[in-house]
Amino acid sequence: MYDLLVLGGGPAGYLAAERAGHEGMSVCCFEMRELGGVCLNEGCIPSKALLNCAKVYEHALHGEKFGVLTHDIALDHALVQKRRARVVRTLVAGVKAKMREHHVEVVRERAVLRGRVDGGFAVEAGGQVYEGKRLLIATGSSPVVPPIPGLREGLDSGWVVTNREVLALPEAPKKLLIIGGGVVGLEMAAYYRTAGSEVAVVEMLDHIAGATDREISDLLLKEYRRKGVDFRLGAKVVALGEGRVTVVEAGGDTVRLEADKVLLCVGRRANVQEMGLETLGVEITRAGVRVDACGRTNVPDVFAAGDVNGVSMLAHTAYREAEVCVNTMLGRQDAMRYDAIPSVIYTLPEVAGVGLTEEQAREQGVAYECRKLSMRYSGRFVAENEGDGLCKMLIDAQRRTVLGVHMIGAYASEIIWGAAAMIETGLRVEDARKIVFPHPTVSEMIREVLWTFS
Amino acid sequence: MYDLLVLGGGPAGYLAAERAGHEGMSVCCFEMRELGGVCLNEGCIPSKALLNCAKVYEHALHGEKFGVLTHDIALDHALVQKRRARVVRTLVAGVKAKMREHHVEVVRERAVLRGRVDGGFAVEAGGQVYEGKRLLIATGSSPVVPPIPGLREGLDSGWVVTNREVLALPEAPKKLLIIGGGVVGLEMAAYYRTAGSEVAVVEMLDHIAGATDREISDLLLKEYRRKGVDFRLGAKVVALGEGRVTVVEAGGDTVRLEADKVLLCVGRRANVQEMGLETLGVEITRAGVRVDACGRTNVPDVFAAGDVNGVSMLAHTAYREAEVCVNTMLGRQDAMRYDAIPSVIYTLPEVAGVGLTEEQAREQGVAYECRKLSMRYSGRFVAENEGDGLCKMLIDAQRRTVLGVHMIGAYASEIIWGAAAMIETGLRVEDARKIVFPHPTVSEMIREVLWTFS
Repeated sequence: MYDLLVLGGGPAGYLAAERAGHEGMSVCCFEMRELGGVCLNEGCIPSKALLNCAKVYEHALHGEKFGVLTHDIALDHALVQKRRARVVRTLVAGVKAKMREHHVEVVRERAVLRGRVDGGFAVEAGGQVYEGKRLLIATGSSPVVPPIPGLREGLDSGWVVTNREVLALPEAPKKLLIIGGGVVGLEMAAYYRTAGSEVAVVEMLDHIAGATDREISDLLLKEYRRKGVDFRLGAKVVALGEGRVTVVEAGGDTVRLEADKVLLCVGRRANVQEMGLETLGVEITRAGVRVDACGRTNVPDVFAAGDVNGVSMLAHTAYREAEVCVNTMLGRQDAMRYDAIPSVIYTLPEVAGVGLTEEQAREQGVAYECRKLSMRYSGRFVAENEGDGLCKMLIDAQRRTVLGVHMIGAYASEIIWGAAAMIETGLRVEDARKIVFPHPTVSEMIREVLWTFS
Repeated sequence: MYDLLVLGGGPAGYLAAERAGHEGMSVCCFEMRELGGVCLNEGCIPSKALLNCAKVYEHALHGEKFGVLTHDIALDHALVQKRRARVVRTLVAGVKAKMREHHVEVVRERAVLRGRVDGGFAVEAGGQVYEGKRLLIATGSSPVVPPIPGLREGLDSGWVVTNREVLALPEAPKKLLIIGGGVVGLEMAAYYRTAGSEVAVVEMLDHIAGATDREISDLLLKEYRRKGVDFRLGAKVVALGEGRVTVVEAGGDTVRLEADKVLLCVGRRANVQEMGLETLGVEITRAGVRVDACGRTNVPDVFAAGDVNGVSMLAHTAYREAEVCVNTMLGRQDAMRYDAIPSVIYTLPEVAGVGLTEEQAREQGVAYECRKLSMRYSGRFVAENEGDGLCKMLIDAQRRTVLGVHMIGAYASEIIWGAAAMIETGLRVEDARKIVFPHPTVSEMIREVLWTFS
């Protein structure tokens, strides 16, 4: 009997297995596809491989401003695909090595719960039964497929694709239509626009990038409109077929848009079906498996982490949730907090944020102060960029602790972790001002904004 | 009578003037050259403008690995120079605007102390006398010129240059010899090597990059040797003349190296001469003006900040010292700490570090633990880079607080501020592990290393 059975080998699953194995627990991890889950195989990592290629290309293309003269420059999508595949292979091998290092048994089969056994639980996979004292459900999520006429057929024929296939298209489509203007839609719009596709994005809301700070998502929208992406906001796809997508626009007008490929990315749903959760009576809500702050389900010794709980649906949230679960199993006090989880959009420019946005603070009735500055207050930003960006900060009006930081501009993705640390540790403006930032960096924008508060 | 007279308009001077003006003090700032000082006009900023151009060029040159195909690519040094000049102009204008915004009077003349007056001090500049209740000495530093035969003549003829002229050379020299393998020497070696120069670096120590973590400076050395820079370590320049530099090498052998240009960058010395400090009896040590942790000199109401105190000689240290001075003038409790000051080398790859190195910890007898990981533990790093890098962390063995973080690899410069915040706030490993880092980023290396401690 194992100490822990982990259902799913994505960020939540493999990290929990690694940490538990490191602590001396005997662990078996079930993954029916590749270790690394959506994040590593068909999400975060391959998309970043693509987007970095696009960034190198765009920088070279506009190199003259930086003294770099080029001729006949081209982005070769097939070469980009080679790199993507190689990067993913390397990193999947890395996860496998970690599993070996921490003595985690990996079973590459679909796993189904078979109920309780004496002192634990039984899981069937590949015709074998495995028993464990504890269970971690980390089965992730799948793309939502809304009931739009023609969508199923499009998915079956391959004309409509999801996050998985869009990362591995053998060539850039002439016309790409993206349903959903969230992070996935925007990143793929960014890459394929740079790779030469005509790109249209249809988004039901009146803004892109979901819960991102509105002022910042508006700047991103403007930038990608300038780059030629056709955004249809407040618009709804009502039918698909024969290379065309029928869209009802905000005003009620119906337009038909042509598309050689359609990317469906309107959200994800927790994977809770057909795995026998009912055999244990694990409580499931509309969002996913219900858990407390320690990752415990309603059934003792059954935990859940990652997308399957439906809370945050980000790989780095999954990591932390997995750690909280393992700490709880080990009897160590730990609890999940969701107020300092950063999010990043790897477009050019990059967007990164952590903590409350102004919209959220208003909605929640938090007494806050907000300040913002143009990125051109950063010497490095001016040295390295032609355009502009923005850095915003929210603080608690009474306690003067940092509540949120939101940025658009170069390096935002790599700067934001320090802001997460400021929120996590409850740092006050007066103390944060004493941090010495290296000069010249774009990270100094945080310092600049800190000094604009009274 | 002004509330504050500031001698020098570099980072310490202009920031103190800005903060003091913001607090309602009447301020007069004296600067005989351009506002922004060495940092903005002939240091940090122009060097970063150059190095970013080199980075764009190198990325494009090796673009094929990222699907970017180029032909006849070239780095045009004259265009790079145009950009450098434009960036500096923009940022100097920014400092001027800040001075106006905070009602700081700027006098573009050399200022000399004329002693005490009733209730304050007198400064003469451009034939006028200015009086102020308080004084901030922020006169910066100048390059050290060692007594090597032929060096003075070389400087006079323009064959030997310092940090000022090297940033504005009209063309990349065919053969550039750099005396001093510290940060300035390495950054200029990096730029001019990429711009096509044959570059030799002569360094007296047996390693480059001064107090940088040794393992990391060795990696940087290896990388730039691979790029063709000729490093002569443990070597001493003994004579210069007629396009040749005579160097005595570690073993005692004498070699003569040819050079079309020589860059002298063996260190800087505080500017304390010929400004009338003796009229007030301000105490000066070998390093510079002696100050306490609040920036006070031995003379009441006379403060000093920035390079002139000879302590750290970094622009961002100067900023913080200036703030401590102004806070002290305003009666607010504040004090300078030097244990969390980051430093960055903007080569390709970048180097960044903060806090104690292993060498320093050993030297100081601190009980520490050290862990390190290859940058290839970062998914983003693998997605975006071909080579490798390193991330090291030192913690206090008893208290388990972070003592130092040292990195070589992409984005290190923008990641390191969060590590400075961890040291500044005395964060323990166990608490730092709860910070959620965005995935995938290179900043996650900090998290990975945090988890390698027992």
